[in-house]
Amino acid sequence: MSVNAYAVIMAGGKGERFWPLSTAGRPKQVLSLVGGKPLMQTAIERLEGIIPPERVIVITGADIVDITCKSAPQLPKENVIGEPFGRDTAAAVALASAIVKERDPDGVFCILTADHIIQDINLFQTTLREAIEMAATEDVLVTIGMQVLEPSTAFGYIESGEPVANHGEIQFLRVKRFIEKPDKPTAQKYLDAGVFYWNSGMFIWSVASIQKALASFTPELMTMANNMEACVGTPGFASSLEKEYGKLEKISVDYAIMEKADNIIMAKGVFDWGDIGSWDALEKYFDKDDSGNVVIGEAELLDSSENIVVSDSRITALIGVKDLVVVQAKDVTMICRKDCAQDVKKMVHQLRDAGEYDGVL
Amino acid sequence: MSVNAYAVIMAGGKGERFWPLSTAGRPKQVLSLVGGKPLMQTAIERLEGIIPPERVIVITGADIVDITCKSAPQLPKENVIGEPFGRDTAAAVALASAIVKERDPDGVFCILTADHIIQDINLFQTTLREAIEMAATEDVLVTIGMQVLEPSTAFGYIESGEPVANHGEIQFLRVKRFIEKPDKPTAQKYLDAGVFYWNSGMFIWSVASIQKALASFTPELMTMANNMEACVGTPGFASSLEKEYGKLEKISVDYAIMEKADNIIMAKGVFDWGDIGSWDALEKYFDKDDSGNVVIGEAELLDSSENIVVSDSRITALIGVKDLVVVQAKDVTMICRKDCAQDVKKMVHQLRDAGEYDGVL
Repeated sequence: MSVNAYAVIMAGGKGERFWPLSTAGRPKQVLSLVGGKPLMQTAIERLEGIIPPERVIVITGADIVDITCKSAPQLPKENVIGEPFGRDTAAAVALASAIVKERDPDGVFCILTADHIIQDINLFQTTLREAIEMAATEDVLVTIGMQVLEPSTAFGYIESGEPVANHGEIQFLRVKRFIEKPDKPTAQKYLDAGVFYWNSGMFIWSVASIQKALASFTPELMTMANNMEACVGTPGFASSLEKEYGKLEKISVDYAIMEKADNIIMAKGVFDWGDIGSWDALEKYFDKDDSGNVVIGEAELLDSSENIVVSDSRITALIGVKDLVVVQAKDVTMICRKDCAQDVKKMVHQLRDAGEYDGVL
Repeated sequence: MSVNAYAVIMAGGKGERFWPLSTAGRPKQVLSLVGGKPLMQTAIERLEGIIPPERVIVITGADIVDITCKSAPQLPKENVIGEPFGRDTAAAVALASAIVKERDPDGVFCILTADHIIQDINLFQTTLREAIEMAATEDVLVTIGMQVLEPSTAFGYIESGEPVANHGEIQFLRVKRFIEKPDKPTAQKYLDAGVFYWNSGMFIWSVASIQKALASFTPELMTMANNMEACVGTPGFASSLEKEYGKLEKISVDYAIMEKADNIIMAKGVFDWGDIGSWDALEKYFDKDDSGNVVIGEAELLDSSENIVVSDSRITALIGVKDLVVVQAKDVTMICRKDCAQDVKKMVHQLRDAGEYDGVL
C-alpha cells in the first residue's frame, strides 16, 4: 500500500448488553466472550500485516482506559484515548481525524469496532486493504456494506447504486443512501430487492476527505477537531477535550455525515461477519451439546435443551429448562429467556433506578 | 396426661430433595426453609407443653449429629442419636423403643419428623395429647391419618374402618389397611371413596405395644432393640449400634409393622398439615408478589411470573421467565422448571455419578 493506514477502534459502550459479565467499569471489549481472548485484542490482531498496534487508536471512556489497556497489552498506552463523556460517534470520528492528522496529515484511517466477529481474516484483510487504497487515492468516504442474510431489524442499511470498480475480488459500488434500522416488513423488502447491504459501521477515509465532510456538514465538529489537534500529546489534552466535548450535542456519524455526503463508496463485504450485540448472538460461535445447549464453563444439565450457560465461577445446574440464557457473574446470576436477550439493558436500567446494586453495575 | 410421653424425631434424610441448599452434610432439617428457623427447631417447639426437649430424641445420621445439635440448641446433646448408616424406619423405631424403654419401661413415644409444616398448633397438640392418652391406656398402635385434600401420589394412604371413640374434638377410627403410594387414578378413587386418609408418618405407641409388634413381625429387630437397650448411655453404644445395624436389612416401619398389625387405631387429623417434600412445596408458605413470584432473599424481576427464588447470598436477576425454581447455594445455582422439582434428586445422583462435585454434595 502506498499509505500508512491507521485504525480507530470505537469502544464507547456502556457495558449494558452483556450484563452481568459486562458492567459500566468492565465493558464488553475487555471480556473474552469468543475465542478465549478479549474482544479488543482480537480486533487488533485481526489487523496484523495491515495496521500494526502502534497505528491502532482506541477511543473509549476515560474511566475504562486502564482496563482497556490491560485487555490489549500490545497497544501503546498513549493510543488509548479516554473521552470524559460520550458525544456519540460523529464527535469520536472528528477527534480521531485530529489525532491521525497530527501524526500524518496525509493519513488514511479506518473506523472499526471491537464487537465484530470475523472468521475469514484473509478476505476481511483484502477488503480493508483495497478500501484503504481507494480512500488514499480518491476523495471519497468508503464504507463496507455487508450482504443481507436475513431481514434483520438490528442493523442500519445501505442502498447501493452503480458499480464503480473491481479490485481483485472486491467490488466497489456507489452508495445511494444510508438508512436507519428498519421495521421487519421494510427489512424484508430490502432483503428481497437485492441492492441493499447492512451498514457494518466500518468506514475508511483519508484525513482530508473526512475533514472536508466535517467542515461541510458539522462545522462545530471541525472546530473541535482543529482545537484538539493542537493538544494531541500535551498534558492539557484531557482538560481541553472535556471543554470541547462540553460544547457538543450528541450526534452519530451516520446521521451527521453518511446520510448527507454524496461521495460515498461501498466495498462489498463478502467475508463472514457477526455483530456480538447480545447474549443470544454468542450461540453460533460455540459447539452445542446433543440437546442444543451451549455451555461456557461448568454446568450440569438434566432434561434441558437449547440453553446458553456462561458459568466460570460457579456450577450451574439446570433441570427441565429450555431456551434460557444463564450468566453467572461475581455477585449476580442472570436468568433470561433467550428471546428476551435484548431486555438485559432494561434490567440494568431497572437495577440502576432501584439504586440498590451499585456494586454490580 | 397420666404418662410422660417421649417424642422421637426421625431425621435420616440424605439432603437430596432440597439440594443445593441441603446436602449430605447439611440436611433439610437444619435449614430455615419456612418460618425463619431450622425445621428441627420448629418441630421441637411444636411440642411445647406436651413433651419438653429433654424427652425429645432425634435419630439422624452419625455424620450430621453435630450440625443437628447446632440447629436445635434446646435439645440435650445425648438425645441426638447418630446411626452409622441408614437401615430405614423400622430399625430406627426399634432402636427408639430401646432408648425410651431404658428411660421409662412404661413410656409412650411419638414418631414424628422434622419436615412437616403445621400452622394450627393447638389442634395438633390436642390430637397428639389424645393419641398419647389412648396409646398409654390400650394395647394399640396409634397413627394420625390426615384428610385427603387432593388425589396426591406423593403419600401413602390409610383405609379406615369403624369409629372406636371420640375424645373431645378428636375422632378415632379403626384402621383396615396401610397402602403404599398409589398411581393417580387409584388416588382419585381413594379421594372419592371418603374413607381413606393420608399416612402422615406420625405414630404413637407405648414401648410395650410396639415391642410386642416388633417381636411378632420382625424378631430380628426386637433382638437388636434388646441388645441396644443394654448399651444406652454407655461408651460402647456407637460400636454396638454399628455391629447390630450391620446385621439388618433395610425395611420401612409401614412395611414391617403397619401393613401387618391388626391393632392399629387412627386419630383423624383435622389440623392443617403440609409435607415439605420438594422446592415447589414451599410456595404456599410465602407471600407472592403481584406476578405470583415468591422471592426469599434478593432478586430483581423483569417480565417474570410464578417463579420461586431462594437467593440469600447473591442477587438473582430474572428476565422474561416463568414457573422456575431458582436456588442459590454457596458454589451452585440450581434452575429447575417448577413441575420438575421432584427431579432434583436425579440431579444429585447425576452429579454424584459424575464424581466431579464432591464439594457441593
